Amino acid sequence: MLDPAIEQRIAASFARQRLMALYGATITAMDVGFIEMAVPGADALLRTSGMFHGGVIAALADSAGGYAATTLHSKNVSFLTVELKINYLRPAKGDRMIARGKVIKGGATLTVVQSDLYTTANGTETHVATALITFIRETV
Amino acid sequence: MLDPAIEQRIAASFARQRLMALYGATITAMDVGFIEMAVPGADALLRTSGMFHGGVIAALADSAGGYAATTLHSKNVSFLTVELKINYLRPAKGDRMIARGKVIKGGATLTVVQSDLYTTANGTETHVATALITFIRETV
Amino acid sequence: MLDPAIEQRIAASFARQRLMALYGATITAMDVGFIEMAVPGADALLRTSGMFHGGVIAALADSAGGYAATTLHSKNVSFLTVELKINYLRPAKGDRMIARGKVIKGGATLTVVQSDLYTTANGTETHVATALITFIRETV
Amino acid sequence: MLDPAIEQRIAASFARQRLMALYGATITAMDVGFIEMAVPGADALLRTSGMFHGGVIAALADSAGGYAATTLHSKNVSFLTVELKINYLRPAKGDRMIARGKVIKGGATLTVVQSDLYTTANGTETHVATALITFIRETV
Repeated sequence: MLDPAIEQRIAASFARQRLMALYGATITAMDVGFIEMAVPGADALLRTSGMFHGGVIAALADSAGGYAATTLHSKNVSFLTVELKINYLRPAKGDRMIARGKVIKGGATLTVVQSDLYTTANGTETHVATALITFIRETV
Repeated sequence: MLDPAIEQRIAASFARQRLMALYGATITAMDVGFIEMAVPGADALLRTSGMFHGGVIAALADSAGGYAATTLHSKNVSFLTVELKINYLRPAKGDRMIARGKVIKGGATLTVVQSDLYTTANGTETHVATALITFIRETV
Repeated sequence: MLDPAIEQRIAASFARQRLMALYGATITAMDVGFIEMAVPGADALLRTSGMFHGGVIAALADSAGGYAATTLHSKNVSFLTVELKINYLRPAKGDRMIARGKVIKGGATLTVVQSDLYTTANGTETHVATALITFIRETV
Repeated sequence: MLDPAIEQRIAASFARQRLMALYGATITAMDVGFIEMAVPGADALLRTSGMFHGGVIAALADSAGGYAATTLHSKNVSFLTVELKINYLRPAKGDRMIARGKVIKGGATLTVVQSDLYTTANGTETHVATALITFIRETV
């Protein structure tokens, strides 16, 4: 179970993220090495074809991944994205997008996270993208 | 020089992209196999540290890349992003971000684009990210 | 369970791969959407530090991934690697390397595979790398 | 122009790389932030279709990239590959493969390199692959 102090620090940091506010994103679950976020399918986030824009999907993958990395640290740490790789697997149609970031390898300097992205429609999840992301710990 | 009919089609398609409108993005140059876009450093696009959010950078890389792919086609074609890989090179601070997408390899099915991202401050450009992106041509 | 005809076709194809023979690689398990391969830690495959060379690890990821893609097809199909992304997680020390390729998304044109790489030492597996790979089906 | 002491150190290190010896690879040019390598199209490096194996191409991209990173350092430094991403652009047919690694961004901890791969046939070069690679500096 995640330390409540870490949970509060992440919630406070997330509340300051203006891009996430613009998207209407919320954190829906946290655990050690794990973050789940959701965003509703607002018009501005969709392509003209009605699918979530790939850039929005990548931003959620990145954000969920970065916070997943911070869950492993009891001190106030900050992570910068070194690089992100995302494969789009299926058309991202649905009324909500869910991002699940999971640490694959935590380290003193670098942390590698896998973020998986899903859309939901009528209560069913579809796996729409998967990302591998490398973060570097910033000395605050 | 780019065929004016292709230019108009791209301009019309870009005008329908709500995420690009939300970001305040504009196309600033087009050529055969090439698109340049710019976006002002509005508050909502920045992290709390004042840098452009990595997700915004990835979205611009993707959008410039996808339109660069369409410049090679005289017919009305549409491209889907298969996968995107981006390396963040330097802190993305500046009053404007510029994305330059350039086709490395056009093909009947797949097109590979390199998008380079720059921020400008006091008239100087800084290279802040580079992306390799694969697109697949959709049959419309 | 994998169709024996597919198993035989993969075994015959693998036997013709000279790079895999040079590495001493063998297929150790097959299933629908899944291939496991192993390679002994021969001197020529190691860096001067005694770790498996990153290029050997990438080659195994690619090979296991490509054959995992073919397990889904009853006809004689061939896959080309569109792109490969690999994260090296830990020093690849050990007396054997194992590659496990698993299809994430099969499609008519493109197939996406995740390959995970492990080294073994004293009977313990260490997760040393993870790769996301896109393949395109060739018409034979 | 590259410092002769750095050149000698790279040549000596390269001579110890058994995988590169197995491939018959040689360094054909060095400069500040740049390495060029070549490898002949020996049978063991080719797929049954006569193209260079993707794993060999990735290994060369990685090796040229890693040495390109070391050209920037006057002290004896060592780099580990954090992650590698390669796009295969065209069938890698030819009697020789050339890898050119060029540093995009050198840093105290991380170095990002772009490696481009070419095959030659009848004196003509074909661009067959491009790679983005992140290296981390090891403290020796």
